[in-house]
Amino acid sequence: MEEKEISQAVIGRLPRYFRYLGELRDEGVERISSQELSELMKVTASQIRQDFNNFGGFGQQGYGYNVDYLYKEIGKILGLDKKHNFIIVGAGNLGRALGNYLNFERRGFIFRGIFDQNPELIGQDVRGIKVMPMEKLETFVRENDIDIAVLTIPKTGAVEIADRLVNNGIRAIWNFAHVDLNVPDGIQVENVHLSDSLMKLSYNITRYMKENQ
Amino acid sequence: MEEKEISQAVIGRLPRYFRYLGELRDEGVERISSQELSELMKVTASQIRQDFNNFGGFGQQGYGYNVDYLYKEIGKILGLDKKHNFIIVGAGNLGRALGNYLNFERRGFIFRGIFDQNPELIGQDVRGIKVMPMEKLETFVRENDIDIAVLTIPKTGAVEIADRLVNNGIRAIWNFAHVDLNVPDGIQVENVHLSDSLMKLSYNITRYMKENQ
Repeated sequence: MEEKEISQAVIGRLPRYFRYLGELRDEGVERISSQELSELMKVTASQIRQDFNNFGGFGQQGYGYNVDYLYKEIGKILGLDKKHNFIIVGAGNLGRALGNYLNFERRGFIFRGIFDQNPELIGQDVRGIKVMPMEKLETFVRENDIDIAVLTIPKTGAVEIADRLVNNGIRAIWNFAHVDLNVPDGIQVENVHLSDSLMKLSYNITRYMKENQ
Repeated sequence: MEEKEISQAVIGRLPRYFRYLGELRDEGVERISSQELSELMKVTASQIRQDFNNFGGFGQQGYGYNVDYLYKEIGKILGLDKKHNFIIVGAGNLGRALGNYLNFERRGFIFRGIFDQNPELIGQDVRGIKVMPMEKLETFVRENDIDIAVLTIPKTGAVEIADRLVNNGIRAIWNFAHVDLNVPDGIQVENVHLSDSLMKLSYNITRYMKENQ
């Protein structure tokens, strides 16, 4: 399967397909046409076919896609058939929220450790795992086959922590710190800038009010 | 100022400009050229000029943009010069994390109330505000000039809650529930599907490993 040329836009849509197919599967639906999927997901059927053609098309026959097969294939493309160990750096509210989010485990993301520099948080329990001090970060990452680090710390310090993680073999950073990270090629970064998302919402409210006053 | 034709892609980039300009301003930088901003933000100077031209260009002279002016203008476009009251529906870890996030207030987003159906959470304190029962949701939204509802509840129930909010005058939903909402025209929705973001990261790790094994 040739995946080299697939755009991040297509990749960005795969989790949504995966989510809808998982729901259809849970509901016992066995087959679905691109037309039906299109109506459900509110994207055009031609977009769906184009997206799927990037991965060989998943063999739609005249009577539609096999839901279970399609769900599993997209899961494999997303790497969800493998386990990924992750740690959380920053044991504040957001870090603890993510540590407690059981759904990640269902997708193969295994919560292994959580770190903070605040002495009051160290030793506290997050889903059975004690918050560790930052001094243990490097050793823990090296010794526990950690793929992904979730950064839920303020922007000050995030760049330095990212460097320390990269130097100790982390493959990917899920970055909630409000700063853009510069990492070497081959290290994957996915940013969740919550304030940016809220500002976009604010823009759309403001614009709608202007147009409709 | 004509804003009708501005794409969501451009809008999506404005918060990042705003963030960088805010940092430059805090550092005391008075002027910056599109070339310098380009190097800092790692986007092309022509992209920056094109984006800014959507809003009249912000009058770059030969010697660059006025940082403070540009920061404030982009802030106004984003609607950050106005206050927006928001509530949080779902007082679990994520809801509490967002309620405690002080940065939102600096941007004009004011935390007014938090709701949950879990009797154990009702009455608990989140930054000085007591968690209220769901029965009070409608009245509270109507009586407190609430613009934005943040949904941090499981996907079951999210669609019904969104309807109740819309019927009581909410303008916008910041949706962390793992489901797509159908709302009437004029109601703004911004989705933060955390699992989708993590799956995208997983895809990129998997692909990189395949290409480099």
